[in-house]
Amino acid sequence: MNHILIIGAGRSANACIQYLLKAAKEHGWSVTVADADLETATRKVAGHPNGRGVYLDASKTPERQGLISRADVVISLLPPHMHVEVAYDCIQLKKHLITASYVSKDIYKLSDEFRNKELIFMGEMGLDPGIDHMSAMQKIDEIKAKGGKITSFCSNAGGMIALENLKQNPWRYKFTWNPRNVVKAGQGTAQYLENGKFKYIPYNRLFKEYKLIEIPGYDEPFEVYANRDSLLYREAYGLDDIPTLSRGTIRYRGFCDAWNALVQIGLTDGTYPIMDSDKITYHELMEAFLSKPGRTGASVKERVAEMLGESEFSPVMKKLDWLGLFSKKKIGIPNATPALILEELLLEKWKLAPKDKDLILMQHEFEYVLEGKKYHLTSTMALKGVDAEDTAMSRLVGLPLGIFAKFLMTKQIVATGVNIPVTRKIYEPVLEELKEYGVVFHEKEVELKD
Amino acid sequence: MNHILIIGAGRSANACIQYLLKAAKEHGWSVTVADADLETATRKVAGHPNGRGVYLDASKTPERQGLISRADVVISLLPPHMHVEVAYDCIQLKKHLITASYVSKDIYKLSDEFRNKELIFMGEMGLDPGIDHMSAMQKIDEIKAKGGKITSFCSNAGGMIALENLKQNPWRYKFTWNPRNVVKAGQGTAQYLENGKFKYIPYNRLFKEYKLIEIPGYDEPFEVYANRDSLLYREAYGLDDIPTLSRGTIRYRGFCDAWNALVQIGLTDGTYPIMDSDKITYHELMEAFLSKPGRTGASVKERVAEMLGESEFSPVMKKLDWLGLFSKKKIGIPNATPALILEELLLEKWKLAPKDKDLILMQHEFEYVLEGKKYHLTSTMALKGVDAEDTAMSRLVGLPLGIFAKFLMTKQIVATGVNIPVTRKIYEPVLEELKEYGVVFHEKEVELKD
Repeated sequence: MNHILIIGAGRSANACIQYLLKAAKEHGWSVTVADADLETATRKVAGHPNGRGVYLDASKTPERQGLISRADVVISLLPPHMHVEVAYDCIQLKKHLITASYVSKDIYKLSDEFRNKELIFMGEMGLDPGIDHMSAMQKIDEIKAKGGKITSFCSNAGGMIALENLKQNPWRYKFTWNPRNVVKAGQGTAQYLENGKFKYIPYNRLFKEYKLIEIPGYDEPFEVYANRDSLLYREAYGLDDIPTLSRGTIRYRGFCDAWNALVQIGLTDGTYPIMDSDKITYHELMEAFLSKPGRTGASVKERVAEMLGESEFSPVMKKLDWLGLFSKKKIGIPNATPALILEELLLEKWKLAPKDKDLILMQHEFEYVLEGKKYHLTSTMALKGVDAEDTAMSRLVGLPLGIFAKFLMTKQIVATGVNIPVTRKIYEPVLEELKEYGVVFHEKEVELKD
Repeated sequence: MNHILIIGAGRSANACIQYLLKAAKEHGWSVTVADADLETATRKVAGHPNGRGVYLDASKTPERQGLISRADVVISLLPPHMHVEVAYDCIQLKKHLITASYVSKDIYKLSDEFRNKELIFMGEMGLDPGIDHMSAMQKIDEIKAKGGKITSFCSNAGGMIALENLKQNPWRYKFTWNPRNVVKAGQGTAQYLENGKFKYIPYNRLFKEYKLIEIPGYDEPFEVYANRDSLLYREAYGLDDIPTLSRGTIRYRGFCDAWNALVQIGLTDGTYPIMDSDKITYHELMEAFLSKPGRTGASVKERVAEMLGESEFSPVMKKLDWLGLFSKKKIGIPNATPALILEELLLEKWKLAPKDKDLILMQHEFEYVLEGKKYHLTSTMALKGVDAEDTAMSRLVGLPLGIFAKFLMTKQIVATGVNIPVTRKIYEPVLEELKEYGVVFHEKEVELKD
């Protein structure tokens, strides 16, 4: 094996490309980076002797298959819905395939085909999903190996922004991953397990009912809102009978109340278009969401504050104001849903400045019983990016892909079928190498006394 | 023409069947009532010499077409999604077709075929839609005819229950129409027009942001929450440039705050199943929706009250309690969504007692300018049912169908194509005859001074 194909050269590909170019030089491999934007693909390869940037419209099957046929291992950073097509190609052409996306039902249906051809499809090999699985499973297996019984597992993670440059941004948040997913976050119903009972938080209460967690090294607590998918990995993690299991998203203090205001107003709804959305202003949009007349002479901002149960200059209202939601600037987007209008506005306001450093936090919290004693263990990882190009997000999504691809190429890891990284032979070498890149979990354990 | 076919003999068919049997006797027609339950069909015809009850599984095309082929006018009271099949049959077999349901896009696509064969499809010929269209258009045409310019039209209607028997029911509401639609009411976003501006109320605020209206003859005001479809008939009503246009649903005072509590808790969500829903109790279900721990020793009811911002014995909490939401009775429905659990509970609690009388209220509110003066006009209709069988709902849905069918049979109304009852030649004779059945709109007009 001597040829790796990376399909998709967007922001999250940076660290993966750099890592594999370096490995390619050491091992004498070649790396092809394919993207619909040839300039991006070429620029990211940057003339590396073992690399080549090529143009690919991934929707064109013959071209896609042409590139795949020449590779041994394929990494797909395409939008998730396109992985199935690539998976069919890889089965047909007998190639291994790695992605950082959630494994869909359609992919799981291909398990036998991958296994029968002695190929691997490795999914969820990024940050979240990815590093969360690996680091959690390492602790779970450790605790089980010494005879402990896990009674509670809460796993929280967040992609945020380091605070140093942020004095002007009252949200203390910027986009470091898919903006659409940030706007849609939590829609549906969050489900988790608490003391053996299933719990449900509907979307309309999700950002009100956050909890606070402490993270070592930070003076103020963080907010955590519940994820939809807490119960998804109960079986995969071997925690079928665990009484308490939850997953959550970490944000700085103050975020959830303000996001809740956007939800209550109706700005995260992507199901219907606002009439004349290109012609009206943000101020008029806010007024359109006010059904009550308000006090005589009250401004739109005062009426929004009243509707939300806020005072006009509360921290929440300041955040809405800072976004420009009360400005008399035209929205200018035809036929747009509230969610799209919000997304476009946030894209501008929450855009990384060149020197911004992003911040990834991940914390696993376990309770377990060992020899009659109860323990509370937190395992925490924090990683800052370097700047807006070299983000912690890009590293933590891209490095696991690259590292795993390398181990496949060198046959240090051998596996078949459709997998996520929850088995020791996979997570152990990947986590070990990730340490060199600052992915270090710090642990704190105390005995719990009743 | 001498043969009418009524497909569907459920509750809403009663008044229609009785009306047409009487008309059939006068005119020497015959009426066939077809239902999947032969006993119901036969019982409702009750041995009338001009009537016949027959068995029909309406999903079986040959049997359905067999019955339709022998009729001249067909009335379909089937579930809305089945009207298209019947419409195809009617085109093929050259029959007129009448329904009380909303006309779907698929039906509108058949306009030319109905017109080319000189047949009519008359949809929305019930109460709401139906009587609302006809009574509104009569006023709109009247005001326009005398030279008035309509600046505001708000149309509100509600199917409720007369208060005399209801001392034990703090909701002052029972089901008089489709329970599923009551549980799902308002999901999505309500849209309307106010002073030339589009307005939006998301579901999470819909039942908080009701308005109050006065109805002559009632001491207390009624609550009105906005409907999703306020703008749907702007064009059909010839009100393209009207600045204010809204439609709403009328409820007794106290309903909306309590329904809002069900929405906030998450009980109206039909998108996911509750785990072990057959095994847990209502009390456990309520606990499952509580994410915050609450004060030490607080009961589930106290915690729900706190989450809703209510005191434990508030009118809202009393209504939740009365439904049995805090009872330790098993839910007993496997794999049920919150909405299904709620619907099944309400079916029991909100079931009409034999002597209950339902109440239909409909109020149109106009503002118009005539010769430089501004007028405010309300046109109000109230009708009580007789008992749980002979409901106002059944009369007001069924009589327009029956009356219109009669006029088609006698050729007093001639029309072709796909129609809703918004033209004078249709609404005038139907409304005129409806008066004999108590469908009388009382008007109150005042001049508005600035």
